[in-house]
Amino acid sequence: MSHLLKNFKLKDNFFGKYEKLVVEQVIPYQEKALRDEIPEAEKSHAIENFRQAAKMLAEGTCDGEFYGMVFQDSDVAKWLEAAAYSLVNHPDKELETRADEIIALIGSAQHKDGYLNTYFTVKEPDKKWTNLQEAHELYCAGHLIEAAVAYYEATGKDSLLNIMKKNADCIYKRFVEEKAEGYPGHPEIELALMRLYEATGEKKHLELAAHFINIRGVDADFYKKETARKGWQVWGMNADDTEYAQNQAPVRELTKATGHSVRAVYLYTGMAHLAAETGDEGLVRACEVLWDNITKQRMYVTGGIGSTNLGEAFTKDYNLPNDTAYAETCASIGLMFFARRMLNIKKDSRYADEMERALYNTVLAGMQLDGKRFFYVNPLEVIPGISGEAVTHRHTLPQRPKWFGCACCPPNVARTLTSIAEYAWSETENTVFSHLYVGGELDLMDSKGAKLHVETGYPYDTNVVYRVETKEEQTVNFTLAIRLPGWCKKINVKVNDATVCMKTEERGIEVTKEVRLENGYLYISREFADGDTINCYFSMHGERIYANPAIAANNGKVALRRGPLIYCVEGVDNEEDVLGLSVCDGKIATEAYQPELLGGVRVLKVPGVRAKRTDDLYLSKKPEQERVTITAIPYYAWGNRGLNEMRVWLPEA
Amino acid sequence: MSHLLKNFKLKDNFFGKYEKLVVEQVIPYQEKALRDEIPEAEKSHAIENFRQAAKMLAEGTCDGEFYGMVFQDSDVAKWLEAAAYSLVNHPDKELETRADEIIALIGSAQHKDGYLNTYFTVKEPDKKWTNLQEAHELYCAGHLIEAAVAYYEATGKDSLLNIMKKNADCIYKRFVEEKAEGYPGHPEIELALMRLYEATGEKKHLELAAHFINIRGVDADFYKKETARKGWQVWGMNADDTEYAQNQAPVRELTKATGHSVRAVYLYTGMAHLAAETGDEGLVRACEVLWDNITKQRMYVTGGIGSTNLGEAFTKDYNLPNDTAYAETCASIGLMFFARRMLNIKKDSRYADEMERALYNTVLAGMQLDGKRFFYVNPLEVIPGISGEAVTHRHTLPQRPKWFGCACCPPNVARTLTSIAEYAWSETENTVFSHLYVGGELDLMDSKGAKLHVETGYPYDTNVVYRVETKEEQTVNFTLAIRLPGWCKKINVKVNDATVCMKTEERGIEVTKEVRLENGYLYISREFADGDTINCYFSMHGERIYANPAIAANNGKVALRRGPLIYCVEGVDNEEDVLGLSVCDGKIATEAYQPELLGGVRVLKVPGVRAKRTDDLYLSKKPEQERVTITAIPYYAWGNRGLNEMRVWLPEA
Repeated sequence: MSHLLKNFKLKDNFFGKYEKLVVEQVIPYQEKALRDEIPEAEKSHAIENFRQAAKMLAEGTCDGEFYGMVFQDSDVAKWLEAAAYSLVNHPDKELETRADEIIALIGSAQHKDGYLNTYFTVKEPDKKWTNLQEAHELYCAGHLIEAAVAYYEATGKDSLLNIMKKNADCIYKRFVEEKAEGYPGHPEIELALMRLYEATGEKKHLELAAHFINIRGVDADFYKKETARKGWQVWGMNADDTEYAQNQAPVRELTKATGHSVRAVYLYTGMAHLAAETGDEGLVRACEVLWDNITKQRMYVTGGIGSTNLGEAFTKDYNLPNDTAYAETCASIGLMFFARRMLNIKKDSRYADEMERALYNTVLAGMQLDGKRFFYVNPLEVIPGISGEAVTHRHTLPQRPKWFGCACCPPNVARTLTSIAEYAWSETENTVFSHLYVGGELDLMDSKGAKLHVETGYPYDTNVVYRVETKEEQTVNFTLAIRLPGWCKKINVKVNDATVCMKTEERGIEVTKEVRLENGYLYISREFADGDTINCYFSMHGERIYANPAIAANNGKVALRRGPLIYCVEGVDNEEDVLGLSVCDGKIATEAYQPELLGGVRVLKVPGVRAKRTDDLYLSKKPEQERVTITAIPYYAWGNRGLNEMRVWLPEA
Repeated sequence: MSHLLKNFKLKDNFFGKYEKLVVEQVIPYQEKALRDEIPEAEKSHAIENFRQAAKMLAEGTCDGEFYGMVFQDSDVAKWLEAAAYSLVNHPDKELETRADEIIALIGSAQHKDGYLNTYFTVKEPDKKWTNLQEAHELYCAGHLIEAAVAYYEATGKDSLLNIMKKNADCIYKRFVEEKAEGYPGHPEIELALMRLYEATGEKKHLELAAHFINIRGVDADFYKKETARKGWQVWGMNADDTEYAQNQAPVRELTKATGHSVRAVYLYTGMAHLAAETGDEGLVRACEVLWDNITKQRMYVTGGIGSTNLGEAFTKDYNLPNDTAYAETCASIGLMFFARRMLNIKKDSRYADEMERALYNTVLAGMQLDGKRFFYVNPLEVIPGISGEAVTHRHTLPQRPKWFGCACCPPNVARTLTSIAEYAWSETENTVFSHLYVGGELDLMDSKGAKLHVETGYPYDTNVVYRVETKEEQTVNFTLAIRLPGWCKKINVKVNDATVCMKTEERGIEVTKEVRLENGYLYISREFADGDTINCYFSMHGERIYANPAIAANNGKVALRRGPLIYCVEGVDNEEDVLGLSVCDGKIATEAYQPELLGGVRVLKVPGVRAKRTDDLYLSKKPEQERVTITAIPYYAWGNRGLNEMRVWLPEA
């Protein structure tokens, strides 16, 4: 059972605000949506579907219908998972009681053999398991398993866990014991079963996860055969497009991240989790190759993945258009999942670097600062009149849409931001790994009540302070392994005022004998006494970054970064004309913290020029230019001040 | 009857080669394709469809089927039109005999009432006129009318003309006399009827063209109503998307060029032709507004139009992506049509400037230099591995595909390049307008055998020489109006060695009293004697051009131009790495003519830098750069030397 969720108390100015929003706004709103209690919203019917399924099982008939997407059950699951996490640090008896009732309802919608899916129970009882490609039975099971694990870890209550263990047994019987063919169209159950295995320790759960991972793509024609025999369809998906569902080859032979990007990273997460558990070398290697393909050829500078709305998918290496990007919020969340599991294979800071990139940029951009609206799609360039309007840009909305009913991204953001501890930390035996820098206090395992306090103004301030607190003047022996962020050019780490690690541009990283540097982590092992303090200085300043020239969309352009944050330029700060702007050489002028702006951001001011628009399309002379100061804000905060132009990559003058 | 086609003898090094290719390669190949005589090609069946229709009419039954697209008849029409033009300067008795046979066959497929369409005659005799939105009856009629006019003008034979007059009468009866509702889904018949009117002088033809133009969009819901009642479909097109078929409003109220770009410019061509004929002010104004919208907001620097493959359509103002451009060859041909008719409304050189841009860049790029392969889609950036492969780039093929069967662009290129006289010249009363600079000799109208000779090495050489030849030392009084190209910064025009017009960067255009300058045309009126010579010097040099900053795809970038030609940079000339290149300030180094390269081109050498590709996607330092000389070739000649990167717009270093 995961120790971190329960034992880390978030006390962080930055994430605290997000957590508060999710607990106070997002989770209650979503519950109302699931219960069809929001008058202006399209009805969800997700909880009513469970009621109808329960009635069907109890009475052989029901008085309503199934309504919604074939995967409507997963909306309830994701909400339960987010609610579970929120209960850890924000106990709420009434919420817990309502969650328990929903769990009881889920239990009463479960068949005697463990089968659980309201779509098939209510609407298509004769078609169970006939459409693995489209019908999301295993996907919904996966999300309910994740909810079960989360609820168990958060509350200690095992009723949903038992329901989902029974469901997992039902699936095991069919696919392992009875050797039914096939694998899920939308990966998810693999990563969920691995979490279930972690929670229960039952080998069957690991075995079932391994089964779905190992069988995938072995028969690349499975969906074609299924299509030929099934006689019904959900959306009429193309079974020939094996790349879409990552079944073009057995998973150990995959070399490119392809297809639907959420499916892809969910699958790779399951693979990495299994590989970390089993040490399977072929699987480890495949995960590394896929990770490298994403992060070295197919990822936006904001940590967004999936270049196209057509199939919400990866396209080809280095094809990263800014204005038509899909870069789904859920896909970046999935990239965080994948990173977290890669860290369990190998503690290498590059995994955490990209996890941090995805979190602080695309994932946070997914939610409006007031928690009320969400981006599913996260373009790097927006032009009113084109974005959201041109037929090629219908998906790149220039403002976050109202969130009606339930859907994937909002609850995914909610569950991620309420379980930040699981990404910030990991533990092995005697070592505590600090992957992300999040303020709070962590109860140290098996350490007689010792705690590790973290104080930081990250991502805007340069210092992260770790302080050990022990009880009754005891000491505690452990290793603290701190990630040294890859983006940072100057680092100074002190243990009780003695420098143990320095990074400079001239000399790179140097460490003293007391500490160890390995794969980007600084290992500090000692008998920690009460009050021992580790002070990390991670130099931050606004700077220009560049793209590999292989990315056609960004040739001749620069982006702006400060620390982990990627910046963007919005019209509202720049006389409503961003397209004419180019960045000049020279110092970033200021980087003042503005507490009143956008919930508190550091604004970059950069010397630039603006080319004036003209009446003609093409000119034989360079358009007239004027010197300007360009104002840039963090990408995560864009789109909170009305419709305007936005750009991450600007030409360099 | 058009005088120009018959009376201009092309003697031009540049277009001569194209005409030869079309006459010797394209037209014979296409005829074989129409006759299903190309073993490896998908069958066309277009001529066989007429045979089956004739049989059906004669015997009440047929022994075969209709095969192909619903508009398969138009393939025969376009071929006949190109063949007609080719017969003017390249008489070929056998070709003419075969064309006559095909015309006779077309006649025998015509119903007694004049109706003519093989799809409906053979396959759907009960569904005539029930699906104007999709079924292309009026579109096919339009192309057959164009063929009839061309064949009549080229050969003097009126059999096809009479067939199509009868067909036009049948359409007139239905839509004008019997007041049947509706207008064509694909405009074409409007421009064709205007040509028919020009050839026959029959008011009915003008009236029918005006009817279809005036009725369009008056009932914007017509296709919705038709869809509701028709009970069958060709492709299931969306009747709600009125912008697609330009029926969102009555044509006089249109302000934006929208929807399928070929349909759009075909419609606007018909409108402009009608407006030129009638002087209808509302229609003139609408044409001007639409022209401006295209050329000032929605056109590529290559004269390509239609930014997206989704509907082969215009999108929004300033949305001109380079790599996913559709820019269909046929749409640029349609832009030439539109320009030509605008010139009949007003002799303003900006129409001819854009006609020239479309012709020398996108239209010519449509055909491989050996005449064997064709681009339908003309992107401004191509990257092997992405272009033609990514799901968003399937249409932007990096090499011209083999031309199987019949389709729109190849025969459209063929008919345009064989009727270049119709674009190069126009005549009003006593004035000959030279819109394009094409070598050859033009018989002057009503001028006792006088001729105007044109000698030029355009588009590579700077001089265009017009020489008058009269018979028996007579003089001939007329006005020669020569377009002064808008792209040209230095001009010198001499009449018999006396300068009459100068353009300099400092002083603009100055003319002497003997000549007149109006809307970009230089009017030289005199009693021309035998041997009188007008020598135009149009300064050409390689230069950088810029885009309006409103075009997001081109901010910070430059393109290269020399004279009317837009240049591009290909991998084969640039160490197979175009994406890393930026253009530096400084002189264009050389612009040598290379007669052996790509059929003879002037190559531009430009100082630049190349940024080296890296292993990482994003870099905190500018990628390493090396100084290079960038080699650029004319855009029309790209893609003739194998798969490689290509770019029109390059970052400015």
